[in-house]
Amino acid sequence: MPKIVTGFSKLTKAEKIEWLISRYFHNDSSFKTVLESYWNHDQKLQELHDEFIENTITNFYLPFAVAPNFLINQRFYTIPMVIEESSVVAAAGNAAKFWSKRGGFRAEVISTTKNGQIHFNYNGNKETLISFFEKAKPRLLASVEEFSDNMRKRGGGIKDISLVDKTDALENYYHLHCTFETADAMGANFINSCLEQIAKAFKEVSQSADGLSGIEIVMSILSNYVPECLVRAEAGCTLDELSFDAFNGKDFAQKFVRAVAIAKAETRRAVTHNKGIMNGIDAVILATGNDFRAVEAGVHAYAARNGYYSSLTDAKIEGDVFTFSIEIPLALGTVGGMTSLHPLVKMALAILEKPNAKELMQIIAVAGLAQNFAAIKSLITTGIQQGHMKMHLLNILNQMNATGDEKKAATDYFKKHKITHSGAIEFIENMRK
Amino acid sequence: MPKIVTGFSKLTKAEKIEWLISRYFHNDSSFKTVLESYWNHDQKLQELHDEFIENTITNFYLPFAVAPNFLINQRFYTIPMVIEESSVVAAAGNAAKFWSKRGGFRAEVISTTKNGQIHFNYNGNKETLISFFEKAKPRLLASVEEFSDNMRKRGGGIKDISLVDKTDALENYYHLHCTFETADAMGANFINSCLEQIAKAFKEVSQSADGLSGIEIVMSILSNYVPECLVRAEAGCTLDELSFDAFNGKDFAQKFVRAVAIAKAETRRAVTHNKGIMNGIDAVILATGNDFRAVEAGVHAYAARNGYYSSLTDAKIEGDVFTFSIEIPLALGTVGGMTSLHPLVKMALAILEKPNAKELMQIIAVAGLAQNFAAIKSLITTGIQQGHMKMHLLNILNQMNATGDEKKAATDYFKKHKITHSGAIEFIENMRK
Repeated sequence: MPKIVTGFSKLTKAEKIEWLISRYFHNDSSFKTVLESYWNHDQKLQELHDEFIENTITNFYLPFAVAPNFLINQRFYTIPMVIEESSVVAAAGNAAKFWSKRGGFRAEVISTTKNGQIHFNYNGNKETLISFFEKAKPRLLASVEEFSDNMRKRGGGIKDISLVDKTDALENYYHLHCTFETADAMGANFINSCLEQIAKAFKEVSQSADGLSGIEIVMSILSNYVPECLVRAEAGCTLDELSFDAFNGKDFAQKFVRAVAIAKAETRRAVTHNKGIMNGIDAVILATGNDFRAVEAGVHAYAARNGYYSSLTDAKIEGDVFTFSIEIPLALGTVGGMTSLHPLVKMALAILEKPNAKELMQIIAVAGLAQNFAAIKSLITTGIQQGHMKMHLLNILNQMNATGDEKKAATDYFKKHKITHSGAIEFIENMRK
Repeated sequence: MPKIVTGFSKLTKAEKIEWLISRYFHNDSSFKTVLESYWNHDQKLQELHDEFIENTITNFYLPFAVAPNFLINQRFYTIPMVIEESSVVAAAGNAAKFWSKRGGFRAEVISTTKNGQIHFNYNGNKETLISFFEKAKPRLLASVEEFSDNMRKRGGGIKDISLVDKTDALENYYHLHCTFETADAMGANFINSCLEQIAKAFKEVSQSADGLSGIEIVMSILSNYVPECLVRAEAGCTLDELSFDAFNGKDFAQKFVRAVAIAKAETRRAVTHNKGIMNGIDAVILATGNDFRAVEAGVHAYAARNGYYSSLTDAKIEGDVFTFSIEIPLALGTVGGMTSLHPLVKMALAILEKPNAKELMQIIAVAGLAQNFAAIKSLITTGIQQGHMKMHLLNILNQMNATGDEKKAATDYFKKHKITHSGAIEFIENMRK
């Protein structure tokens, strides 16, 4: 059996690839050729991308696309999207166009507070702890001042620290709940640095306090659960305006509201419903250099906040007005992190005309709402497969190494015929006979 | 105000870029140069990537890296990871090495059943519906036979259809719950095609059945909530074996178990805890051409299955044995979709020695568990920032356009000094004076 490889991260990129080729590819150099075919010819640019993380061997391509015609708060945006799923950008473009003719989207940021905790064990008297904390609090708040200069200049910083008794949920478990504003930065590094500093100060003062033995700090870390960093977006129009093609506006609206009600009532549907929303959200998160794992975790936990996992969007008919809305937590940055490092992230932010974090929250909430609109619209009218397979057709053709002529013939033919995977393969095979 | 752009998706890539440059960049062609600097020189390869989705203008780079030394079920793996976050691959490598010296990881697939629903309204007698469904069921199952040839050959296909009464949750709401096995495919297209076909058959037979007026199908779609597609992974050793550096094994294990207990008891911690798990999972999901939004939604909803959002991992000490485990739903494919289209996805699967879907479930569950181990290990010992900033240092230096010499001096210096963002900037500025 092969053994542990030691010192791998210290090898050069070329040495790492040599090791992979000898270990997994019987020294077949064609694998090296594939990896190298994805390197950038500009050595300095390639070095930048190599150094983002450890052990990079090449660049993974995801398509960088744009979806135009998003009218948000009366301003037109073209939204950059990074995503591999074939139907997402097309759906975004369709939904954007649909709503741009019906007043567009409205969006507003409800709040922007982020948070983190210092988790600790304490088995002593609760009242002693509370009065100690109240006395120590100014010193804890002051302990982060040295980190906060830059953040304060931008209007951010620590807001408050409170003591939370969680002993009902877990014996002897308390935490310090710290809240922050981080302006246009996502703020993870700032918050974590603050928390570690507060934890240090908390430990120091508790050790010199009377009757306060036994405080043991377990860990200090920001929370990606950010229900106080919230944005709302909506679109709406009269039922008459909602008519399109052969569909009557009122019938469509009623079926649409019912589809959302089902996603609110049934977790198996809610998960896919919200997954579709995240198709739109993550595509913009990636393009703008934000962290999609952080957003995913916070959003889905928010979807489960009422004791069961449910829809993130809501739809209603009041009188003759249809309204479709979303409310989600989004902790985002437009400065710091990837945003100033990745040339294509800079490009994405430039296409969005350099939004601040609040504007980006609004844009991304709309991207999610639009995606959900497109999905439900398909589901309750033609079914999801028709549009999906239309977008997927080129992928099937590429899998068959179809020529330009073959692609043209196939796309023409399947404009009028139902697309299936086997049908597309058969069509090309017949052309080749 | 600018107006709606029509026919955008029909423009050529060059025309789309021209439009963007004129609309957002005052015709400054340097933006075009940036976009083009990310195109591949191999025109055929570039065309493949352009055609994955609509409106592609360039390739977004994410680092493609590898983490070696994963010992899973007594076999060594090198795991490909696609991720932008600087500490994830380093953490994976560290955790893998740590456990490879302590017996490695064990993983097993518990079940692989996928599901989808046909959601419908029915306001008639429930008993009538049940007896109608029982009679119609063989015909519904038979209706998908024409789609199932390929899937049956690979050991998959539809398993069962059941009628679910959800009228408690929502008036007049029922669904047909359909279960599937999809072998080594993720199966989304197959399942959705089956569901649309079953819905069509269901509607047809209901229309000709006595006393069954008023069935209205709302939508038919697979579910990304897949608690019956489940994998478990774990690692464990004696408390003695758990000692490392200056840390005593028993103390470390107790603090570790406490940290997991906190993540089980407190949603604000659970969300970040699970976010860290998903750092590892999504990196392999992306590298292997799977859909991270589907996995994220399914996993986080599973984390909330007991009525509150909680930790996906568990840790315990029994006697002198420490065990750390994860159980998560993962619907994955190693054939179909991106897996046969994206050259780097093929490469990633080759590095993993061409796993089937079950093996990939095990590998990815381990990647998540390892990431969580590394995060908790840092949190309860040195704190998260030390390791994070170590990995982030190169990004800060690149932001400052540091030269090779400057980078070397800074990395040497910060081996012995605490890394902060401002400290790194100051160090380089002093060098430049």
